Amino acid sequence: MQSSSITVRVRYAETDQMGVVYHANYFVWFEMGRVECLRQLGFDYKQMEIADDCHLPVVEATCRYRAPAHYDEVLTVETRIIALRSSVIRFAYNLFHVQSDVIRLLAEAQTTHVVVDGKMQKRTLPEKYATAIRAQLK
Amino acid sequence: MQSSSITVRVRYAETDQMGVVYHANYFVWFEMGRVECLRQLGFDYKQMEIADDCHLPVVEATCRYRAPAHYDEVLTVETRIIALRSSVIRFAYNLFHVQSDVIRLLAEAQTTHVVVDGKMQKRTLPEKYATAIRAQLK
Amino acid sequence: MQSSSITVRVRYAETDQMGVVYHANYFVWFEMGRVECLRQLGFDYKQMEIADDCHLPVVEATCRYRAPAHYDEVLTVETRIIALRSSVIRFAYNLFHVQSDVIRLLAEAQTTHVVVDGKMQKRTLPEKYATAIRAQLK
Amino acid sequence: MQSSSITVRVRYAETDQMGVVYHANYFVWFEMGRVECLRQLGFDYKQMEIADDCHLPVVEATCRYRAPAHYDEVLTVETRIIALRSSVIRFAYNLFHVQSDVIRLLAEAQTTHVVVDGKMQKRTLPEKYATAIRAQLK
Repeated sequence: MQSSSITVRVRYAETDQMGVVYHANYFVWFEMGRVECLRQLGFDYKQMEIADDCHLPVVEATCRYRAPAHYDEVLTVETRIIALRSSVIRFAYNLFHVQSDVIRLLAEAQTTHVVVDGKMQKRTLPEKYATAIRAQLK
Repeated sequence: MQSSSITVRVRYAETDQMGVVYHANYFVWFEMGRVECLRQLGFDYKQMEIADDCHLPVVEATCRYRAPAHYDEVLTVETRIIALRSSVIRFAYNLFHVQSDVIRLLAEAQTTHVVVDGKMQKRTLPEKYATAIRAQLK
Repeated sequence: MQSSSITVRVRYAETDQMGVVYHANYFVWFEMGRVECLRQLGFDYKQMEIADDCHLPVVEATCRYRAPAHYDEVLTVETRIIALRSSVIRFAYNLFHVQSDVIRLLAEAQTTHVVVDGKMQKRTLPEKYATAIRAQLK
Repeated sequence: MQSSSITVRVRYAETDQMGVVYHANYFVWFEMGRVECLRQLGFDYKQMEIADDCHLPVVEATCRYRAPAHYDEVLTVETRIIALRSSVIRFAYNLFHVQSDVIRLLAEAQTTHVVVDGKMQKRTLPEKYATAIRAQLK
């Protein structure tokens, strides 16, 4: 699948006293990548929740941190869907820092999501989403 | 009003690259103080939301930062209600670091809250809460 | 002073169970506005810390919340410097949501900062910064 | 290894608009568990950084989310060290909600840490730490 790409500028609030970004914050950026990945497929996650009662809580998350991210750096999150079953979606992420043609890979991650309704009950992904995602996965 | 008191241990995630706690995080501690202040009056904020459809979003927040807070310090948040009208409550907070009998005041703050229902419409505070708070304010 | 302007898209992580943005997160956006305001004056806050040993911790912060912010909204933070003394800077912020030509003011805020070195000792703002800011304040 | 145990009360700030705790926040709790696990071994992570110039950034983090956590719940984080090499430590975590004798497992996680100095250069774990940890691992 073609990956979608967003940039985030590191916020001061995201750093910790080691002088680098606190590790948990990467998962917030991956979520932003995920939402843009869906948007690129033509979907608005906000509407997915409101109009289709379809939510995607994380059931598994993994990240390998390869190099630290620093305050004020502009980072690139590349996101793609790597697996789809009726009620499960898996995303993969690469986090890069690009500066003066030097590309550093900062982190690689995956998150797995189960499709649920607003009461947290498992449900199948509506067909319009599944169709669009499957078309990309080929 | 007698103030309620809680302690919080500073988390690594709450520090920033200056080596002190990031200023926005104090408001999270004040919220914790607020919830315990209500609990001491006999109220459970969780039930206040669920059972009484009564929410207390912040409409104004002010903090004076007097000394920095550091990682792993155990801090004391003292909270008291300082004003009540039919749909408005105001809390005041003092944040202390106590160590070996030396008390440092780290911050003083106030937050003002409007009483709303789950649809964010203004409503009056249920009488049971108002009565208990007024008894304390005297 | 002419204000600088940035946009932020609300992250899922920034919402709370009321379905709106948690109030403390606004201060993170204001910090982002502050950094861009300095950048527009020709300054890089990161370099200000590294090269000039000049840090701007918050000593006072106030926010009036006028309307809630929601997930995925693209918000505008307008920031300007409203006061400068030798070791103190004050910023003012307006947070807007603009959609289909309807402008909603979500919040108004101010933060006051003291100029310190890396050991948290008060110092005067280097003249290059002071000069540039004073030129704007006129 | 015997696990150490801490409790955390879920903060309003940690919830998101699904009405449950945002997934990235679990990693903050695991860090708290980690620090207490070290404290139980006789070590103060703060001093480890200051006195021994020994930091433990996360190089890999994995979490399986089994059930959601809710606002105001008091959760238990059980932490233990599961592997140690000269410059690498691995921790495992279980997150529980215990209420009226019903124990729910909310999440299982692991984090791997590399031992570095303040300049982010890999170093070996000082012998006093290694000895104490190895004694527990047996």
